[in-house]
Amino acid sequence: MATQNVLILGAGAIGAFYGSLLSRLATLRVSVVCRSNFRAVSTSGFRVTSPTFGEYTWKPFKVFGKPADAGNPALGGLRKWDYIVVSTKALPDVSDDSVLLNGLVGDGTKVVLVQNGLGVEEPYVARWSSKGVRVLSAVTIASCEQVEHGVIRHNRWTRINVAPFKCPNDTGRDFVRWLNEVGVRDAKFDPEEKMQMLRWHKCAINAAMNPSSVLSGGAPNVDMSLDEEMSRHLIGVMQEVIDTAPKVVGIEMPKEFATAEQILASTKKNDSKSIPSMQQDWAKGAKMELEVILGAPIKLARAKGIEMPRLQSIYALIKMKQKRRDAGHKL
Amino acid sequence: MATQNVLILGAGAIGAFYGSLLSRLATLRVSVVCRSNFRAVSTSGFRVTSPTFGEYTWKPFKVFGKPADAGNPALGGLRKWDYIVVSTKALPDVSDDSVLLNGLVGDGTKVVLVQNGLGVEEPYVARWSSKGVRVLSAVTIASCEQVEHGVIRHNRWTRINVAPFKCPNDTGRDFVRWLNEVGVRDAKFDPEEKMQMLRWHKCAINAAMNPSSVLSGGAPNVDMSLDEEMSRHLIGVMQEVIDTAPKVVGIEMPKEFATAEQILASTKKNDSKSIPSMQQDWAKGAKMELEVILGAPIKLARAKGIEMPRLQSIYALIKMKQKRRDAGHKL
Repeated sequence: MATQNVLILGAGAIGAFYGSLLSRLATLRVSVVCRSNFRAVSTSGFRVTSPTFGEYTWKPFKVFGKPADAGNPALGGLRKWDYIVVSTKALPDVSDDSVLLNGLVGDGTKVVLVQNGLGVEEPYVARWSSKGVRVLSAVTIASCEQVEHGVIRHNRWTRINVAPFKCPNDTGRDFVRWLNEVGVRDAKFDPEEKMQMLRWHKCAINAAMNPSSVLSGGAPNVDMSLDEEMSRHLIGVMQEVIDTAPKVVGIEMPKEFATAEQILASTKKNDSKSIPSMQQDWAKGAKMELEVILGAPIKLARAKGIEMPRLQSIYALIKMKQKRRDAGHKL
Repeated sequence: MATQNVLILGAGAIGAFYGSLLSRLATLRVSVVCRSNFRAVSTSGFRVTSPTFGEYTWKPFKVFGKPADAGNPALGGLRKWDYIVVSTKALPDVSDDSVLLNGLVGDGTKVVLVQNGLGVEEPYVARWSSKGVRVLSAVTIASCEQVEHGVIRHNRWTRINVAPFKCPNDTGRDFVRWLNEVGVRDAKFDPEEKMQMLRWHKCAINAAMNPSSVLSGGAPNVDMSLDEEMSRHLIGVMQEVIDTAPKVVGIEMPKEFATAEQILASTKKNDSKSIPSMQQDWAKGAKMELEVILGAPIKLARAKGIEMPRLQSIYALIKMKQKRRDAGHKL
């Protein structure tokens, strides 16, 4: 196979973790676009620790300080990448990040969106599919964090599911095979509709845990799951999403997906005191992924005449909370 | 008519306002039990300002520093009061305040509960009805605040509805007539079932506005009502309560009660930037009336096999928020 050039756009914890693994294949040249961690990574690369893959340093092929640099040959960039992995936070209410691919993609480029929530693919399809760019949709449950700039701690799980989105059926199989080859045994290639159900299913978990932590003042996952009234609420939110998904997507929820009760039971056993990522964002004053995790499912359901009362209440409350902080109110 | 002895238990804004009006009748001797405002009131009485009744000072017949003193003849107390108006905050999860009537009531004493929420009457009936005490249930929409100890500002509205609760049909008509006589033209005597619908209806408003302000970081009523997503949520919560009430109480919601849309429209026009009382409590670190406004309707509905998804989510979130603050977490 000819050498393939892979660009990780948004080399935070998840992007750097999978990028570092892909780079183990001799046929792949993996580069990264960094933002806040640019200085650390361009000097020393990434330091990764993982219960599955051990402890290692990864020096990306090229480290770029912004997306445009990755398209500038004078800086080692390419006018057309083979693969671009987008692992930025999805904030469609703040910016349309599909525009960042300007000057980096062309006919045959595959863009893998490793992002949470619903509706993240459409802006990329709308902007790029007529140029021959192919969009892949991916969901991972890997738990990774960047504990300091360039230092990635992989906590547990490696599973990532990848599927074509509005492009030919087999697009992206090679990407999954590469992941399998470097040891991500549970990287899996899925058909498009199943991916949408996976996204809804993960959205059920995110929509329950994430905003509830922010609204209740920063509660850890395990504390919420062990509180009697809160556990009813969490199951209620997850069930609302799980019940709505088949009506919107048009297929049954796959039988092997965990039920709301199973997810809650598993959260109760998580003694890590982990805090949902949305609360981590809130605590550091960053924007939260409200639109892709709450706004999008509500909108998709409403278009089919279905209301999601719990989700809508949560969405309204957390948006108002963010709006008040943005306006400078002391909360 | 023989002189009637009336005791206001919990002489905050609402209790002092109605007490000061009742005291205008020569046949009533109105005394008060104060807590934080005892020193100010026993020295100078209450200073009341009202758009309806003007500006005046009210010196209660007796001012007691605690409920037990009101039953101690050596301090001017009585072993049996004719009327006791209970206008304390209703916090059944913190304390059963019906016990405070110990030594103050006997056969024929009427207890008027001017409190928000649902289920406030039962503890009083359970403890006292076998002793011949009669319980009246009351709801007011008067907007009053105690701007400093002993200084009561009546903002607007005077309406108070009073009804017997599990006692003979006409019990308490005299109390309403007295209010009418001193100028509260919209004091109204209602049958028991209608009072329960009034309580549910007011609960719809409280359950929507109060916790939403706390969860969104202190938003004023008008700001919430003017926010598009929030207004959907507020209508959703009110509608959920309004739809549930007839199924629990067993009669239709009276046609003359405002709809959720009408309540929202009226809130949009309220340019006072008023903050819901629950948020005022939260801001000063006080306990919130979560049980009577949220817990009770959820429990009553559940006993009939009805779930209230929006209310339950709000209830779980705000309880968790309070629990975290009580545990000393920085929010």
